Amino acid sequence: MPRAAGMPSLSELGLDTVGLRGVETRVQMRSEVMGYSRHGPALNVDLYQMTMAAAYFESGLDTTPTFELFVRELPERRSYLLVAGLAQAIEFLSGLAFHPAQIDYLRSLPSFKSVRDDFFDYLSSFEFRGEVWAMPEGSVAFQQEPLLRVKAGVIEAQVVETYLLSMVNFQTAIATKASRIAAAAAGRPVADFGTRRAHGPEAGVLAARACYVGGCSATSNVEAGFLFGIRPVGTAAHSYTMAYGSEELAFENYVKAFPEDASLLIDTYDTPNGARRAAKFGQSLGSVRIDSGDLVELSKKVREILDGSGCAETKIVASGDLNEYRIAELLKNGAPIDMFGVGTEMVVSKDAPALGGVYKMVDTGKEGADSYAVKYSAGKETYPGAKQVFRNADGAGNYESDTIGLADEEPGKDRITLLELVMKDGSPVKSAASLDDIRSAAAENLARLPEKYKRLEEPEDYPVRTSEALEELRSKAAEEMEKRGQGPKG
Amino acid sequence: MPRAAGMPSLSELGLDTVGLRGVETRVQMRSEVMGYSRHGPALNVDLYQMTMAAAYFESGLDTTPTFELFVRELPERRSYLLVAGLAQAIEFLSGLAFHPAQIDYLRSLPSFKSVRDDFFDYLSSFEFRGEVWAMPEGSVAFQQEPLLRVKAGVIEAQVVETYLLSMVNFQTAIATKASRIAAAAAGRPVADFGTRRAHGPEAGVLAARACYVGGCSATSNVEAGFLFGIRPVGTAAHSYTMAYGSEELAFENYVKAFPEDASLLIDTYDTPNGARRAAKFGQSLGSVRIDSGDLVELSKKVREILDGSGCAETKIVASGDLNEYRIAELLKNGAPIDMFGVGTEMVVSKDAPALGGVYKMVDTGKEGADSYAVKYSAGKETYPGAKQVFRNADGAGNYESDTIGLADEEPGKDRITLLELVMKDGSPVKSAASLDDIRSAAAENLARLPEKYKRLEEPEDYPVRTSEALEELRSKAAEEMEKRGQGPKG
Repeated sequence: MPRAAGMPSLSELGLDTVGLRGVETRVQMRSEVMGYSRHGPALNVDLYQMTMAAAYFESGLDTTPTFELFVRELPERRSYLLVAGLAQAIEFLSGLAFHPAQIDYLRSLPSFKSVRDDFFDYLSSFEFRGEVWAMPEGSVAFQQEPLLRVKAGVIEAQVVETYLLSMVNFQTAIATKASRIAAAAAGRPVADFGTRRAHGPEAGVLAARACYVGGCSATSNVEAGFLFGIRPVGTAAHSYTMAYGSEELAFENYVKAFPEDASLLIDTYDTPNGARRAAKFGQSLGSVRIDSGDLVELSKKVREILDGSGCAETKIVASGDLNEYRIAELLKNGAPIDMFGVGTEMVVSKDAPALGGVYKMVDTGKEGADSYAVKYSAGKETYPGAKQVFRNADGAGNYESDTIGLADEEPGKDRITLLELVMKDGSPVKSAASLDDIRSAAAENLARLPEKYKRLEEPEDYPVRTSEALEELRSKAAEEMEKRGQGPKG
Repeated sequence: MPRAAGMPSLSELGLDTVGLRGVETRVQMRSEVMGYSRHGPALNVDLYQMTMAAAYFESGLDTTPTFELFVRELPERRSYLLVAGLAQAIEFLSGLAFHPAQIDYLRSLPSFKSVRDDFFDYLSSFEFRGEVWAMPEGSVAFQQEPLLRVKAGVIEAQVVETYLLSMVNFQTAIATKASRIAAAAAGRPVADFGTRRAHGPEAGVLAARACYVGGCSATSNVEAGFLFGIRPVGTAAHSYTMAYGSEELAFENYVKAFPEDASLLIDTYDTPNGARRAAKFGQSLGSVRIDSGDLVELSKKVREILDGSGCAETKIVASGDLNEYRIAELLKNGAPIDMFGVGTEMVVSKDAPALGGVYKMVDTGKEGADSYAVKYSAGKETYPGAKQVFRNADGAGNYESDTIGLADEEPGKDRITLLELVMKDGSPVKSAASLDDIRSAAAENLARLPEKYKRLEEPEDYPVRTSEALEELRSKAAEEMEKRGQGPKG
């Protein structure tokens, strides 16, 4: 994998080499319009985080609160979450810094005109130095369970909210969707073909990563191959055939360029005819792709043609508006499809396109009763206290139920502790897991989740309880807040 | 707006300044994991575009085909599209280049092992030198209408497909959704609050841009303010109030930091009590935000409290799972809300989260009958020929119907020609429109679209016809393809 192991030199950045500078400079310029800044992601925040930061700073509040990132309710049609996005979250926290140009911009905003210079000086040396606990990527999680817990100086803990949410919400939504699709494919490989429908170019790359975590085997996205080492795959488009004006000629030229393992798209005109034309290439023909029509009928017909022409080894790839339900239906009807290419429905998680993860303060960082952080906004009540998730498994290692408890509770016998320390004093405590290890962990976690909790139709609710200690803290906090006139009744 | 006007110097890039290098280097390193490469977006392609490119190159195909980007059918619940994303598309095409590291990666792929060095040499000097026609951003468009037309060397035209699609599909989907929400707000400003639920950080920034095109007035996304000059806005989070453990103290410290125009979130505990506590700040209190509960009832009560406490000028901002339907309902019920903050539903276009735009070859670039580019994949038939969209308007300028015709047809009297030349020989023909001009154009186009075509419930279908000349070409192409054994029947 072509990932930098250390600090890249200027030469590696391509900036002291005349021949490269043109390309790099164009890249740098372009990023201004492209939706990400050459100055890093520090301004990928909601403005209110910066106004809160200024108010904290000006008032001298110097606490070390705890925040938790969790999903209140599972989205429609989802019976579990497959956690992803932690690697990017940690990278973000490790490198977070405000560039002078970004600070100048904040200073220029009308709402900041009364904010004193001290605050902007503080930003110029800002670093995230907090402690982070998180469920490893590939974990299976449920409603109300913290996926990530941050304890840091109040400003540090506050300003990282938006980035953490957008990264973890998105990748978790997509990994979860992909895991359903991979399960429906019942062992047949699934490739992500969705970049063109993703929410912009970066979303396509991140979706490819999340799909891989969720069980996909490959992606059409070359950047995801380059950055993350995922195997890029692809056949050809209809336009390729059209460019030559003849399927024969198009196929011939493709096989000439890729003689070892050509993959031909055979449905541009008439699919069975396309299959016959493709079958002429015999051993060179690695696979054929069908992207339209009745995939059950066509895949059977194509299989017959291939088998009858000495192409028994040639695989059939199917694509075209697939999702977990359509794949299950195709296989139920005996479609001899060897691999699925899934696009739109997977990379935007079409039936549940947004995961509503939130990032909430659970401990103010003050002492005793002053530490309680709860809110009583209608329908958005929170549990106070830094938490841990304990998982009960049976003798065979199958997951039975979860208990959300306080971070300092004893896990007890045979309970798995889900949140691990991942950052201390702003630095990762260990090197990042490889993407293949994450993918294997996801597969194992999903295997341990009994079928009744993950079937596509009417799954049962996985039992998630709260511990006695947590309920006690909640009651005490509610009493205290009520006493102070800040309780549920005001 | 802090957008670079020319080539940034190394110093502007922060790379020859010791004090900055730390930040920049961390940014550069991070980008490897963050989902976009420091080498630019050239690998944001589906692999099949690179395999097709190699096959074209190896076979010596040297045509100049035409491709069109269009949406086959409007998504669920949509009666028009509001076009966005062109600025980014043009920037991408203008700067597209393959970095040596990217070429090395392609060369390393097993499937490319038989591809000759000539192809990789070609990539190293690759530039997009084509011609592009497009509907200006802010245009109102319909099914089957080309939003973008590219004529370029066959490899150039092919490899840009994925990026163009992901950018135009996404921004168009979001601008369209935002325009519905802005319409429902009936003149009251709408702010985008959605970054945390966007599909990754870049998607949040691009969504903010598209929402602005669609009629939003502001965004919570600071990066979108920095890059695009959109006004960033924000109040505070519930955690802000919780951090101080007392609403009084939290409000006091906020107003101290932002004395001119403080905006307070008043629903952390009990909303009417929050309103009373906020009202004490009188003139300093620019706005209050309610994020939960029965927004009709609460906004009325809060208005009463504010008016009765000398805060008649204080605005009420409402947020919390809003969309066009909920906003219309709130206003119908007389909720005295002055501004809406809309998040999740808008930035992922929740009820139609993917726009199915496609990029299809419509002319092979060869002569005569060899120029026909059509396909007959079931349900995915295409119209051949480079096209133009002609719009009929009545005397008052209101849009009546569209005709999709051939690019060289005479527009005829009183017809508006929608696609404009935007790039020639790979360079933009004029400087990009300002985002405010795009937003104004969008507002004007939407105003010219009669109400019956854009109402939220059961809109009529806007009439889109095809010209006689286009139908003639389609018939001729079908005859010819049939003759060659590549027609709809094979």
